[in-house]
Amino acid sequence: MRGVISAIAPAVIIEDATHDIAPGDVAAAAWVVSRYWDLYPAGTIHVAVVDPGVGTARRALAVVADGRLLLAPDNGLLTRVLSSAHEVRIHEISAERYLRQPRSATFHGRDVFAPAAAHLAGGVTIQQLGAEVPDPVLLQSADPERVGGGVRGSVVHIDRFGNLITNIPGSWIQPGARFQVGDHHGIRFVESYGFAAASELCVVIGSAGTAEISVRDGSAALHTGAQRGAVVMLRQGVT
Amino acid sequence: MRGVISAIAPAVIIEDATHDIAPGDVAAAAWVVSRYWDLYPAGTIHVAVVDPGVGTARRALAVVADGRLLLAPDNGLLTRVLSSAHEVRIHEISAERYLRQPRSATFHGRDVFAPAAAHLAGGVTIQQLGAEVPDPVLLQSADPERVGGGVRGSVVHIDRFGNLITNIPGSWIQPGARFQVGDHHGIRFVESYGFAAASELCVVIGSAGTAEISVRDGSAALHTGAQRGAVVMLRQGVT
Amino acid sequence: MRGVISAIAPAVIIEDATHDIAPGDVAAAAWVVSRYWDLYPAGTIHVAVVDPGVGTARRALAVVADGRLLLAPDNGLLTRVLSSAHEVRIHEISAERYLRQPRSATFHGRDVFAPAAAHLAGGVTIQQLGAEVPDPVLLQSADPERVGGGVRGSVVHIDRFGNLITNIPGSWIQPGARFQVGDHHGIRFVESYGFAAASELCVVIGSAGTAEISVRDGSAALHTGAQRGAVVMLRQGVT
Repeated sequence: MRGVISAIAPAVIIEDATHDIAPGDVAAAAWVVSRYWDLYPAGTIHVAVVDPGVGTARRALAVVADGRLLLAPDNGLLTRVLSSAHEVRIHEISAERYLRQPRSATFHGRDVFAPAAAHLAGGVTIQQLGAEVPDPVLLQSADPERVGGGVRGSVVHIDRFGNLITNIPGSWIQPGARFQVGDHHGIRFVESYGFAAASELCVVIGSAGTAEISVRDGSAALHTGAQRGAVVMLRQGVT
Repeated sequence: MRGVISAIAPAVIIEDATHDIAPGDVAAAAWVVSRYWDLYPAGTIHVAVVDPGVGTARRALAVVADGRLLLAPDNGLLTRVLSSAHEVRIHEISAERYLRQPRSATFHGRDVFAPAAAHLAGGVTIQQLGAEVPDPVLLQSADPERVGGGVRGSVVHIDRFGNLITNIPGSWIQPGARFQVGDHHGIRFVESYGFAAASELCVVIGSAGTAEISVRDGSAALHTGAQRGAVVMLRQGVT
Repeated sequence: MRGVISAIAPAVIIEDATHDIAPGDVAAAAWVVSRYWDLYPAGTIHVAVVDPGVGTARRALAVVADGRLLLAPDNGLLTRVLSSAHEVRIHEISAERYLRQPRSATFHGRDVFAPAAAHLAGGVTIQQLGAEVPDPVLLQSADPERVGGGVRGSVVHIDRFGNLITNIPGSWIQPGARFQVGDHHGIRFVESYGFAAASELCVVIGSAGTAEISVRDGSAALHTGAQRGAVVMLRQGVT
């Protein structure tokens, strides 16, 4: 992909955001992209290819969202970007003149997304790449809900440290709150890892602004066995 | 290596192609380099150091191939580049003035290849680096052969998804063809992963243009236990 | 972190030194940074964030050492840089105007170190970031010592190949020297891996200039089970 981009747009600076997404894990990619895409300045072109449907009729998308460009398969990878951006336009990548010929059935990163991104860097617009897409594929997700005196949320992502990142907003957590995931009850909320005991399962407000179940100097994923989608209960403390 | 290059040639842009080659796996490096070296524009300098013989008398090579420069140990790493390029010149990297002093016995990436690459970026020619090399080390490999009504090939590389990449050209595959690797018979050829059943072992034409044994949403390497070098049989179907 | 830097200082070139440090392993980061920081040209800004104390009162440091700038948590990560540099100035990173607002409790790489580094790239000085720090946290380490007819040292780092890197200077090794680590006695010193037998446990002078226990085409860490801190004995040979 770097070679193809460099050959079309030699002056472009190419950076790697991550190579740590497990093969085919579109939901993880959707989370990770959502954490950084709008930290980059307007004009940045993001290419994200986690693409189990490569070679089928699934569309390839080029998106303008709040001034950044994003290219990805139409498989839900951009769900979180599309839901959080203020202004969005979505087009299909289909104009043959901006794609690599011939096109393989297995590596559209090289044959579709890289050349399209390089042409966008050179001034081509997403309108020139193909028709507008009114109905992009979106991943379904449950929002956290208030139940009784607490909150029912879920694990939306597990990061490389083994932290269980939830969808429970940090602003919903009151002093003395306790959390539960699986068989693990009474998990304390602390201000940061350093305030937990060694190897204690605890909850902090993570860098996404939501409750994050962690083990100080360890992996909450290994400690609890919880997987993405696991239910997380928050019980507010008596204050 | 980046530091050494930056100190000699501060304006050079340095990119990582991959860090996923297993320690000492020269054959894997040879495959991976062959997949991208000529996608980059002419003038690109590729440095590839998988170097179990570091510190012995093995030579260090600087190659010009179809307008790209490539630096690597003389251990076969460039075999596929040398066999596919139209124009090749090969020189040894030995001129002390372009190397780091003193030179370690274990890290020629830092002490030999990085400084030589930086000097090439600054205008030095491969002729200035050392004498011409008429006899580079080449890895041996068997070509696929037509046998009876089919083809006998082999696995030449296993990628990070666990796909078994073979040396059987996609153009040799007829409709209805079936493949065999190890105890796994009757493997279907499909246009792309999306046309296989869930967890089905199948064959697609991969991004190198050859037959690739895959498992949809899984790893064919784990599924079959096959390793690099494994025999792959293709039986053409009755059409 | 890249996004934050790019938004503040768009023209900066950002490179990754490594992402292979195990979570929370400050001592490994201290070693790795010490191997490359001064190979880069003066003016380079190094950011190194291995930060188990993030969110506590631990300080964030900005250092000028021999013309390079280094940013890291005040947890000993820069110990080896501070002890080997000729000229050092250390300041705290605390001026709110150069940090990201609001600041998370878990990701100061994004919220503290990245913006501070970008502002340094734009001309801000470490004096502007905060007060001078006279007492940075330093990791303790034992120096190798001469005992009887030999040397008593230790494993200071294990690299990704499984090499056991010791603190015994290569210049202390005499011909015929034999090494011991754990139950493994009589380990030979050889000029480079290529002079060892297949799978032989051997000692070479590594790229840091110290004795390194290795297995040719294998992992000395797996072979011996030794961990960082393990005692390594050198017995000089009869010459």
